[in-house]
Amino acid sequence: MKISLLGGTGDIAEGLVLRWSKAGHEIFIGSRKEEKAKGIAEGHINKLNELGIKSNIHGMENADAAKNSEVVIISIPPEYAASTIEQISDSITNQIVVTPVVSMKKEGKTFLYSPPAQGSSALEIQEVLPETAKLVSAYHNLPAKELSKVEEELDYDVVICGDDEEAKSVIAKLTEDMPNLRVLDAGPLAVSSMIEAITPLIVNLNIKYKPQHFSVKFV
Amino acid sequence: MKISLLGGTGDIAEGLVLRWSKAGHEIFIGSRKEEKAKGIAEGHINKLNELGIKSNIHGMENADAAKNSEVVIISIPPEYAASTIEQISDSITNQIVVTPVVSMKKEGKTFLYSPPAQGSSALEIQEVLPETAKLVSAYHNLPAKELSKVEEELDYDVVICGDDEEAKSVIAKLTEDMPNLRVLDAGPLAVSSMIEAITPLIVNLNIKYKPQHFSVKFV
Repeated sequence: MKISLLGGTGDIAEGLVLRWSKAGHEIFIGSRKEEKAKGIAEGHINKLNELGIKSNIHGMENADAAKNSEVVIISIPPEYAASTIEQISDSITNQIVVTPVVSMKKEGKTFLYSPPAQGSSALEIQEVLPETAKLVSAYHNLPAKELSKVEEELDYDVVICGDDEEAKSVIAKLTEDMPNLRVLDAGPLAVSSMIEAITPLIVNLNIKYKPQHFSVKFV
Repeated sequence: MKISLLGGTGDIAEGLVLRWSKAGHEIFIGSRKEEKAKGIAEGHINKLNELGIKSNIHGMENADAAKNSEVVIISIPPEYAASTIEQISDSITNQIVVTPVVSMKKEGKTFLYSPPAQGSSALEIQEVLPETAKLVSAYHNLPAKELSKVEEELDYDVVICGDDEEAKSVIAKLTEDMPNLRVLDAGPLAVSSMIEAITPLIVNLNIKYKPQHFSVKFV
């Protein structure tokens, strides 16, 4: 598939790009500046070359990356996610849009879930998307470091939610292109806060039980 | 240890009573009415007898059960938990109090986390406890059915939180008396909402993926 990653730096973006490239997907890296996006794309291409994996990765401005793709991943910090999507909403028609966005705050040494007024980052992003877009909430709780080790299998669950069943099944399939992730469908977009809230929990556990990088499994 | 289960009917109470009895702990079942508590206690004793397990279980009013125990488990529905604790707060001095309480609401077919104004059931209960009591939040996400199968080992994680380190280590030890549960300490009581919110997520997954009864592991 044609997949864009908007703001495709850092955190889980690298691992997703590497693993989806390996699975044969075409990747569009989006950034506010074309030059920056091209630089990031080149970095991914080089890393994949070193691993002997052919890739099809392009860098361009966020709006063009979104326009070119069937699936749009919002790989943007929570404080800019909704506003960035709002700015490029003309470029989003009937794509599947995926939010892994989680908003946290730090109190003392502890990270707390700190959702926007809408109740979750997913619901905040939903508000600025055109109605024809199909929003799926996913990938909040994948450990970035393990995700980027493209030769290693991942024994985690990816809990997703969303109001469009077909969009969720597309994302389930894309997720299962990254062995051995399992997708669990937790229901409508309204449950996203409950999925997002697991992230600060994991961040706190990672600090306490360092050097473990936790993810989650439902057993 | 001397452990009381207030409102010790239903849900996870049975499994906790059976497993802790098997581990040699003394159990005090509390209820609003002594007679009801005695009946519940008798039921547990009989079940354990059938399994060839000697037990030391007593039934009494909630206040007396709390007074007699070192650890108090609040096994009460969310809508009555804080008010029940408030009514018997004279009987709680320096005990460790454990809240597995989760407040949910149903919207359509979907369960949503619906915490009280304080932000979590744990913080609501904290407000009505004397300052000398030590509150630990735990056991929200154990599957009741599996917990009550006392001959089977449990391969789940119990995420706990609380502001008293010593109380958390007592609860960690009590939890690990139920093989093979593993305790993960997620930090202060302030994170309880993030643990509680996993419960409606699991409830939705249980409905979608029936007959599976999910619990959670951090891997």
